[in-house]
Amino acid sequence: MPSVSAQYSIILRVEIDHRPGMLGRVATAIGDAGGSIGSVDLIGIEGGHTLRDITIETAGEDHAIQIGQAVDEVDGARTVDITDRTFQMHVGGKIEQRNKLQIRTRDDLSRAYTPGVARVCMAINKDRDRAFQYTIKRNTVAVVSDGSAVLGLGDIGPEAAMPVMEGKCVLFKEFGGVDAFPLCLSTQDPDKIVDIVTHLAPTFGGINLEDISAPRCFEIEDRLKATLDIPVFHDDQHGTAVVTLAALLNAAKLTGKELKDLKVLIVGVGAAGMAVAKIFQSAGIEHIIGCDRKGALHTDRADYQDATMPPVKRWFAEHTNADKRDGRPEDVIDGADLFVGLSGPNSMPATALQKMNRDAMVFAMSNPTPEIAPEEAEPYARVIATGRSDYPNQINNVLCFPGIFRGALDVRARDITEEMKMAAARGIASIVADDELREEYVIPSVFNRNVADAVADAVAAEAKRQGATNVRGDEIGYTRGETGEFRAIRP
Amino acid sequence: MPSVSAQYSIILRVEIDHRPGMLGRVATAIGDAGGSIGSVDLIGIEGGHTLRDITIETAGEDHAIQIGQAVDEVDGARTVDITDRTFQMHVGGKIEQRNKLQIRTRDDLSRAYTPGVARVCMAINKDRDRAFQYTIKRNTVAVVSDGSAVLGLGDIGPEAAMPVMEGKCVLFKEFGGVDAFPLCLSTQDPDKIVDIVTHLAPTFGGINLEDISAPRCFEIEDRLKATLDIPVFHDDQHGTAVVTLAALLNAAKLTGKELKDLKVLIVGVGAAGMAVAKIFQSAGIEHIIGCDRKGALHTDRADYQDATMPPVKRWFAEHTNADKRDGRPEDVIDGADLFVGLSGPNSMPATALQKMNRDAMVFAMSNPTPEIAPEEAEPYARVIATGRSDYPNQINNVLCFPGIFRGALDVRARDITEEMKMAAARGIASIVADDELREEYVIPSVFNRNVADAVADAVAAEAKRQGATNVRGDEIGYTRGETGEFRAIRP
Repeated sequence: MPSVSAQYSIILRVEIDHRPGMLGRVATAIGDAGGSIGSVDLIGIEGGHTLRDITIETAGEDHAIQIGQAVDEVDGARTVDITDRTFQMHVGGKIEQRNKLQIRTRDDLSRAYTPGVARVCMAINKDRDRAFQYTIKRNTVAVVSDGSAVLGLGDIGPEAAMPVMEGKCVLFKEFGGVDAFPLCLSTQDPDKIVDIVTHLAPTFGGINLEDISAPRCFEIEDRLKATLDIPVFHDDQHGTAVVTLAALLNAAKLTGKELKDLKVLIVGVGAAGMAVAKIFQSAGIEHIIGCDRKGALHTDRADYQDATMPPVKRWFAEHTNADKRDGRPEDVIDGADLFVGLSGPNSMPATALQKMNRDAMVFAMSNPTPEIAPEEAEPYARVIATGRSDYPNQINNVLCFPGIFRGALDVRARDITEEMKMAAARGIASIVADDELREEYVIPSVFNRNVADAVADAVAAEAKRQGATNVRGDEIGYTRGETGEFRAIRP
Repeated sequence: MPSVSAQYSIILRVEIDHRPGMLGRVATAIGDAGGSIGSVDLIGIEGGHTLRDITIETAGEDHAIQIGQAVDEVDGARTVDITDRTFQMHVGGKIEQRNKLQIRTRDDLSRAYTPGVARVCMAINKDRDRAFQYTIKRNTVAVVSDGSAVLGLGDIGPEAAMPVMEGKCVLFKEFGGVDAFPLCLSTQDPDKIVDIVTHLAPTFGGINLEDISAPRCFEIEDRLKATLDIPVFHDDQHGTAVVTLAALLNAAKLTGKELKDLKVLIVGVGAAGMAVAKIFQSAGIEHIIGCDRKGALHTDRADYQDATMPPVKRWFAEHTNADKRDGRPEDVIDGADLFVGLSGPNSMPATALQKMNRDAMVFAMSNPTPEIAPEEAEPYARVIATGRSDYPNQINNVLCFPGIFRGALDVRARDITEEMKMAAARGIASIVADDELREEYVIPSVFNRNVADAVADAVAAEAKRQGATNVRGDEIGYTRGETGEFRAIRP
């Protein structure tokens, strides 16, 4: 039987002769064809027929058609049509604009729009910081992509990237209460992207860069961070790094290991791999080896010597693997405490894990197929985490970005600093209480509603401590002065 | 007594000794100070005091303070604070993002986001037009400004322009059901603005340019219209033109005048003036004279001859006033049927209106002070319209832009053509039925909910007639083929 899943869920509309046993026969045909039935709704009864909508999980688009045909072959049943529930969910987009006020009368209009709005405009004109008070800047993040590295799909273009960016916006709102707006750009020129985002900044309180391919993503982020006075955050790098560190903090606590003593092997040294290595170093980890397809990175490697090594890998060669260990992942994994996979399946045989230190930790984060299947890692590792929702310990960026921007917006942060990312990781880790901590639970569920608040609080506190916040202008009226007399605070 | 208005409405919180007659004394003090009381709410009673919130219309910020002080001077009353209701309405911005679906389970997540979203992305990747089907592009308009010509406030910058652009978005949604998003750019360079908006287009189904100063607005709109396959509309020009024509269509019907015979004087020849003149000509009006501060524009004028005349005025000189009439507005108004004011107060003495043709029409649209006060025009004109809400016949762009974009989005229009604008004007005019038409009612109220639908229907029908629409991709599943067999329509 094929393996069904919710992403291939369909609604099959079927017309059935109105006589006993018919629904059972249809259901049996669906089951025999490998479909998994959810709800069955009665739509109508007409002229001796019943019309029903049957929700079915299938294994894919071809399988959906096979099920439709199988139902068609039942005597007295006829498949009317099939709706793909995933596509249905996306029709017209997943987010919309909502007005926070009603415009029902001329008085409403005169305050929300002309002429009253002019007073609000001039208040901001006098003090630009008041944009945080009187505009959507206070709570709005741009989710910016150029569609060049979308999920595992690659360079699919800005229109095709929109469903992902809208989905990101849905998660921002659902988990962080952040208003996010997707902007997919029809250029991949770093100069243009920097220029566009720079000039869009007045509208936004933060910029989330998303699915921009390396190495352009580094330059774009660095230049925007240097220019703008609002946070700029490339989630593919830093979100991954924060959540990975969060899982490690708890896994280390569980296994009684100190971060400074840990030996870490990172397989996959792209943008996310570098961000993970950097946050690990910020957290005090001293021993890291990074591997690409040719093996461990170090400054004696031929491609480093002849300067053909690309910048991210150069960074690894220069800042990790001080012992210049050489070889494939399975050659350098001996004595490692933590394996971090950010590459893809088959990058190392599972049996190599037996060379790791006692209480080994394996974070195999490639999605949908982990570097090493949890079942195969299980004999060798004490803590196993993946990027998948159907195994314990899912390392998922949604644990980070809603909360980190919630916290940053709450204090009008100018930046998301290294310290704020570390605070976010500690915030996520803190959700797992000491008495709950165990091998299968080092990182909270993405549906744990306490995570975003914990992250936001930690990030906001750290931003305030660092003084990395914008000035405010909160007054909206007049109040009493310090000496008790009544006075105006001009907006 | 100062003249109070809703835009200066306040909530005065006052603590009053709890004894008979006190509220009356407070209300009297407010009235004596010139405030107009709306609702009075009881907030609490504590220790012999009542705490009340009194809503008061005032004449301005200074007046609000005077009223607060007057209440403070009542024995047994104390002003606690005053909230400015206009500023209060804008706190945190006026619009927000709303999710159209809930993410409550892993199955929800697997359809709305990874992994299921990848299927939707790839469907759009195969056919870009499907962005209209599966993303917010279907119903989303960007409201783009550079803050260079905001209301009558001038060049106040992008942050200060945001409250107006958000207000525009509120009106788009309230009246047209259009999702609009404000983008205020921190550049006034036409090349950059064109570049930015061009590269943002994948996200949007339309672009509404707003409050961009002339002559840059012409170039920016022209270049974007030439580049993009979605509608680009500069509302300050074309919205004004559409609504003015709508008012004229009904005023001409009322007075029994034919458009081709009309003599029109336009005072104020900026971007809006030119757009009005152009749509008038498209509607068949042959006799137009435009005036700037130096008088009527024609090709014999010195500044035309020495080429110092700016482009918009050159257009007037070359395309209107074929008789090359010369002089101030009051010198060339004789025999005119319609006066259109798009300048400011005191551009012509009211008495000059007596030189107009019988059944004269006066559209004095300067805001807040019309070129000629309706009271002064009344002896000379049969139909009077202004831009103000407190006189009959308000010519307000909100009658146009929600409906015109509603119609354009409904048919996935590639452009808003001259013919679609004409259709919009007829749509607005059609709301006033023949048996309702009278001097004080040539244009519907901005709160008439039928206007946007009528405009949208007219615009959509015209776009379809012209074939100015994008291709669709509506399928979301599988259906029966033409010969009755069950088959798939691949998304």
